[in-house]
Amino acid sequence: MKFWLYYWPSIPGRGEFIRLALEAAQADYIDVGRNQGSAAVAERVHRGDHFAPPILDTEHESLSHVAHILAWIAGPLDLAPSGEREFRRMIQLQLTLTDFVAEIHDTHHPLCTSLYYEEQQAAARTAARHFRADRLPTFLDYFEQTLRDNPFGDDWLVGDRCTTLDLSLFQVVRGLKYAFPNAMTRFDTPRLADLTARVAHRRGIRGYLNSDRCIAFNNDGVFRHYPELDEQT
Amino acid sequence: MKFWLYYWPSIPGRGEFIRLALEAAQADYIDVGRNQGSAAVAERVHRGDHFAPPILDTEHESLSHVAHILAWIAGPLDLAPSGEREFRRMIQLQLTLTDFVAEIHDTHHPLCTSLYYEEQQAAARTAARHFRADRLPTFLDYFEQTLRDNPFGDDWLVGDRCTTLDLSLFQVVRGLKYAFPNAMTRFDTPRLADLTARVAHRRGIRGYLNSDRCIAFNNDGVFRHYPELDEQT
Repeated sequence: MKFWLYYWPSIPGRGEFIRLALEAAQADYIDVGRNQGSAAVAERVHRGDHFAPPILDTEHESLSHVAHILAWIAGPLDLAPSGEREFRRMIQLQLTLTDFVAEIHDTHHPLCTSLYYEEQQAAARTAARHFRADRLPTFLDYFEQTLRDNPFGDDWLVGDRCTTLDLSLFQVVRGLKYAFPNAMTRFDTPRLADLTARVAHRRGIRGYLNSDRCIAFNNDGVFRHYPELDEQT
Repeated sequence: MKFWLYYWPSIPGRGEFIRLALEAAQADYIDVGRNQGSAAVAERVHRGDHFAPPILDTEHESLSHVAHILAWIAGPLDLAPSGEREFRRMIQLQLTLTDFVAEIHDTHHPLCTSLYYEEQQAAARTAARHFRADRLPTFLDYFEQTLRDNPFGDDWLVGDRCTTLDLSLFQVVRGLKYAFPNAMTRFDTPRLADLTARVAHRRGIRGYLNSDRCIAFNNDGVFRHYPELDEQT
């Protein structure tokens, strides 16, 4: 199966969750934004069948929303758990990650996306302080416990093999370490740390992370490093 | 199939999307929060297999996240489109609604959920102003166009029959009219208006809306009416 990924070319953003799955499976895909520029992505979005990127096309179908795309490609890419119940649980936990990512985004853009960060910095400081104190530990603890409570062992979040969900959580932890380096040192989540290391060492992922296809985090994406939003040391 | 719905008893909130599906299908369900109080809901959440309510249990399985629950029960409740592609499209559009609902919620709680509305009212005014100007018309236009472009006709969002997605959009439009009565008069979305009327007149829904099982909107839920956040006339 051949894939066309439509996402903004200059940020990892939400597109990176799809890219990691495609790269882990060494799938045949074209990163349209990187190849043809952001106008090609905008043109694709304006066709109207999707509300927003990332969009993933095959020759036969076209899907948007990270959790939905991943549920669709996990099987074909051999990144799904074996059982149907675990598959449903994978989708469910991916939707919890979706919520987590939205809350991370809103720390630097709490008021709206149409104002620059600099125009809502005071609100962002308040939002980030509450996020670091309440939501960040709640979400991290939840995923740490999910690993601990997996009846198949604590290597992966669901079942006994690596799924698209593990790749996504890896990306969220990386993004959080970029965005909130001080706050992230506070947490004792050994299973999450092991999972992150395990994903980083997979062949497809290791090669990708060292390639020029992998876009570094920067302050235009979901995960942004503004020192004033991090914990002060 | 018998269902147990776990959601806070005093608000429609996100639980209402599940309730509407169960009621439209006149399904056999127990609304645990309404029957046993919010402590029973809290106890269910604290078991740890779900991040947050709504949670829907059967005798065999347990799911959370509105879009995920609806995808799971749409078939059994006879509220799914006939084709597999339409089913995937239904899930996708439900996830767009999920994002819309989160943005609606954030108009009154832009900074965090741990502060009261009154403690973040200034930020909420700015957030709501931008929401009414940018995001509200963008989302409403998108769903109006989705109805217009449905190759099966503009009665329903996907395929040629009522699905859980139509019930959810009905609830969002109702909620928006409660929250932003002035702003909502500005929009010319005739297909959305027809859809809302069509859903309201379905037998299961009409009976439910007139019953005491249906919780009125109030200022503790997702949709809240604060006149200062609406357009000023």
